[in-house]
Amino acid sequence: MPESTPIIILHRPQLGENIGSVARVMLNFGLTKLRLIDPRDGWPNPAADPLSAGAFEAGVEVTVFETADQALADLQLVLAATARPRGMEKPVTDATGGAAQIQQCGLASGVLFGAENHGLPSELVGLADMIMTYPVNPAFASLNLAQAVGVFCASWGASEGAVGRWEGEKAGVEPPAPKEDLIRMFEHLEDELERAGYFYPADKTALMKTNIRNAFIRGDWTMQEVRTFRGAIKALALGRGKARVKRED
Amino acid sequence: MPESTPIIILHRPQLGENIGSVARVMLNFGLTKLRLIDPRDGWPNPAADPLSAGAFEAGVEVTVFETADQALADLQLVLAATARPRGMEKPVTDATGGAAQIQQCGLASGVLFGAENHGLPSELVGLADMIMTYPVNPAFASLNLAQAVGVFCASWGASEGAVGRWEGEKAGVEPPAPKEDLIRMFEHLEDELERAGYFYPADKTALMKTNIRNAFIRGDWTMQEVRTFRGAIKALALGRGKARVKRED
Repeated sequence: MPESTPIIILHRPQLGENIGSVARVMLNFGLTKLRLIDPRDGWPNPAADPLSAGAFEAGVEVTVFETADQALADLQLVLAATARPRGMEKPVTDATGGAAQIQQCGLASGVLFGAENHGLPSELVGLADMIMTYPVNPAFASLNLAQAVGVFCASWGASEGAVGRWEGEKAGVEPPAPKEDLIRMFEHLEDELERAGYFYPADKTALMKTNIRNAFIRGDWTMQEVRTFRGAIKALALGRGKARVKRED
Repeated sequence: MPESTPIIILHRPQLGENIGSVARVMLNFGLTKLRLIDPRDGWPNPAADPLSAGAFEAGVEVTVFETADQALADLQLVLAATARPRGMEKPVTDATGGAAQIQQCGLASGVLFGAENHGLPSELVGLADMIMTYPVNPAFASLNLAQAVGVFCASWGASEGAVGRWEGEKAGVEPPAPKEDLIRMFEHLEDELERAGYFYPADKTALMKTNIRNAFIRGDWTMQEVRTFRGAIKALALGRGKARVKRED
């Protein structure tokens, strides 16, 4: 992990359940350092365990601080997750921008989230280098604490080596079949449709063939898919015939 | 709201608490349409209310469906939220890409999430146009259901404002058929293949069907193309039989 992997910091969290959910979603996206400032119900808190899905045992380390100053002391870049406060002269970013900022800076970084009922007090927002805000519905703006942390964590995960990951995904997809294979498949289908009397009237045949080919071409079929579908054409053309012959015997 | 505002679809959700949390985070980011496929504890479910933070009263509408086919019937673009399944030939995107795709297409869209314990069955993934996957920690990959929905909703919120048009329209291509039409086409094709003895061995049938559906789904077929191909299936299944009967008369 790069040095700049951010620490998640919860200010006076109230519900152990939320702390457990935060730990789970942190580890889902590869974050392992959690700081709690003056948690209401102390720490450890048994209420956190069921919702953590084992995240504490699997790698999330919790450190408890009495004050925010102590919790932020060793950090070089702090983002405060909050709605944009009026009259606060501070850079504002979103989750994607916040994650990118931390990725690029190479500093000891943390993201600070407020309590369930109160959010972050403005003196704490004042300690942050940047405000991170989400594009919420103004008529229903209050996110669950663990959801708020989760949105940042997902953006962090997406920012981390995103290019390499995407290329890897692409490499897992089979390339489209060469056109030759597709053309043979079309000819096979068209031959069978011809025999079945499908193309009517005759002067529309070329257009009908083109329309069917267009629909298939858009799918970027692989060689395996071409083989599979040729088997299906064969089965339809022959198997059904056999069935009818049997019934009419 | 643009027509393309996506519908969130939960397949066999188990915990009412999660449904409530899903509704809350949907409305946080401006989404209001929630579909439940065969929820374990029925609907309405009183366990959903406390965690919804009033989202149902404030605008989230729930519709319950017995089957996935019914829940997807009227949708033209479906994203399946899942880890990338091996051997599934389908475009893969992330939350940002998925939201952008829906923004740009202007189609009736939905995002499908699996149950807490099982995720999405592959036949359901097979019905989707794209896979949406998150860059999770492979050692701790299982997201809470509401978190999984929340990550998408936040990306949707961040993408809003970039409303575009189905890019196919520029090229004169008709919009994709609703899933209902495709599902009927698949059933038609599969019925005929079944009669023709194509599916063998029996334990591979489900996989074979999923592979064929995947190949077709990628083509974004129009309603006209679906009708045309259904005509072709019919011709192959019946016409060839007639031809053989004639020859054997």
